[in-house]
Amino acid sequence: MLTIVVDAMGGDHAPTCVIEGTIQALKESDNRFEIVLIGQSDKVKPLLDNYETSALNLRFLHAPEVVTMEDIPAIAVKTKQESSLVKGLQLCKSKQAHAFVSAGNTGAQMAASLFVLGRIPGVLRPTIYAYFPRIKEGLTNIVDVGANVDCKPENLVQFAEMLTIYQRYGAGIKKPITGLLNIGEEEGKGSEVLKQAYRLLKEADSKGKITFLGNIEGHDILKGEATIVVCDGLVGNTILKFGESIPEFLGNLFKQSLEKLVTSGQINKDIALLTANMFKGMLEPFDVEKFGGVPFLGVDGISIVGHGRSSSRAIKNMIFMAEHMIEKRVNEHISEVLSEK
Amino acid sequence: MLTIVVDAMGGDHAPTCVIEGTIQALKESDNRFEIVLIGQSDKVKPLLDNYETSALNLRFLHAPEVVTMEDIPAIAVKTKQESSLVKGLQLCKSKQAHAFVSAGNTGAQMAASLFVLGRIPGVLRPTIYAYFPRIKEGLTNIVDVGANVDCKPENLVQFAEMLTIYQRYGAGIKKPITGLLNIGEEEGKGSEVLKQAYRLLKEADSKGKITFLGNIEGHDILKGEATIVVCDGLVGNTILKFGESIPEFLGNLFKQSLEKLVTSGQINKDIALLTANMFKGMLEPFDVEKFGGVPFLGVDGISIVGHGRSSSRAIKNMIFMAEHMIEKRVNEHISEVLSEK
Repeated sequence: MLTIVVDAMGGDHAPTCVIEGTIQALKESDNRFEIVLIGQSDKVKPLLDNYETSALNLRFLHAPEVVTMEDIPAIAVKTKQESSLVKGLQLCKSKQAHAFVSAGNTGAQMAASLFVLGRIPGVLRPTIYAYFPRIKEGLTNIVDVGANVDCKPENLVQFAEMLTIYQRYGAGIKKPITGLLNIGEEEGKGSEVLKQAYRLLKEADSKGKITFLGNIEGHDILKGEATIVVCDGLVGNTILKFGESIPEFLGNLFKQSLEKLVTSGQINKDIALLTANMFKGMLEPFDVEKFGGVPFLGVDGISIVGHGRSSSRAIKNMIFMAEHMIEKRVNEHISEVLSEK
Repeated sequence: MLTIVVDAMGGDHAPTCVIEGTIQALKESDNRFEIVLIGQSDKVKPLLDNYETSALNLRFLHAPEVVTMEDIPAIAVKTKQESSLVKGLQLCKSKQAHAFVSAGNTGAQMAASLFVLGRIPGVLRPTIYAYFPRIKEGLTNIVDVGANVDCKPENLVQFAEMLTIYQRYGAGIKKPITGLLNIGEEEGKGSEVLKQAYRLLKEADSKGKITFLGNIEGHDILKGEATIVVCDGLVGNTILKFGESIPEFLGNLFKQSLEKLVTSGQINKDIALLTANMFKGMLEPFDVEKFGGVPFLGVDGISIVGHGRSSSRAIKNMIFMAEHMIEKRVNEHISEVLSEK
């Protein structure tokens, strides 16, 4: 049976949401896997006792320390060895568990995952991606979104290769398509790094490792011709955070515009409310939280990173993603493809 | 009297929209300046003859060649010396005119402006910026948006300095505020280039050349605390094009959502139309075309770059911007500030 470690201390709504998400995952899956909930006993146990868990494959493990959102990643990893983060990952390293899930300090989780689990042989730099809405059905993934600010051409190519494997085996996309984010479509556009990356991506395509669409531009992201958008961490992080800010920005504009129509008597309040709710639903694709989390691709183990504001539903989805990563042997496929010359 | 050269051949709707925008500018300004409309005689003259222009400060100048959107910038500049683009800029260089305005091939205009006009002494690299909507009143400018893909820290600082001068003298913003686009707010975040740029921006602030807010992130752009968002051309170009794609993306989603409400009988067609129009108006801030164009900052002369799909209104606004740049002596101020040590 698979064992998944869940960080009870990670996230803005921890431990409550984490406990609830964990219980939901076990109930929905009919105890298909075992969960080790790890965290500070005095914070987690009293809350956990409010739930009936005797029929669930659930164990609690005490970790006296906690890594907070304010902790500096590189320092936290070394000084907080007894934290739920480091102890949880060590359970994976020692093969007592198969995956680790947390919605805590992303930087610290990346640092700890690298430090404790190491890299898959052949991987130059692990990465994290993000989900993005698109006009076409399905979703687009952008990679990297902040783990690697300065990228070499070969890093960008590996991001594409790893995400191709993830989409193919982990997300059931038959033919993942990679686009290189650039300032123009033509070959030869962009910086030296992008020009070289273009050549290497074409090479990877000819070897059958990826399907390369060529250069794409900012306005192509939402079109969704590419299922994988490759860029460095600064570009990806900026686009991701910019995208996340759109619902609030437009939501406020929409509210003001509706109020004007109500005030001028052009529509009544019921219609305004109906339209406002419709609009809220429409912007939902920009809400990345519902996807749960993403695996930290390239580390030698499974470490699922969640958004700080993860709900119990997000935690549940992260647990299912962990299970999926193990069953679909995503890391084994990455290891195979990246060790090929 | 000021003389402004307008490229009759530049833009998707040239020469018609260019002629109309030129006439509108002269009428609205009461012939405050002179316009030289430059282009291929056989294409422009017959159209121009449809308008009553005898009372206007308008001259036509023949340029036998034309730079198209498909031309490769560096080649076009050298092989098409008799184009409206190169000839128009040469009029500025030889002081027969004070400014050049075009909605044609942006890359070619940048190359030709640099080639013909040169740089303002002290400027390392000229740049172009873009307008962006914001929650607060007014607008944000992002710089660079594609002229400089690879940037050194000192380039980023000069972009901030030049745009500060432009906003202060050209746009009447009393206290332009610069933010450095990064993956996190804290000092020390990001690539080596960004870390150094942070230090240099702080230095420029202490010398009173700019007001530096610090690092900002993707979700801060629409908030608008910074009136100037500094980044390299790849990040800026991506954000700009991504932003431009939002109205179409959301417009389609909105239409579909409204149709569902109509089909299910929750709202009637009149209300749907009213709401659809409201939404269209709401997304207008994302339509950069209405701003007309932007000056190519740092070249030793005035070269206003417009969007390919410029309307006559956009052309008119570009002409007024050219006049404004001359009168407010923006380039002289740039020269003063950038030559200070």
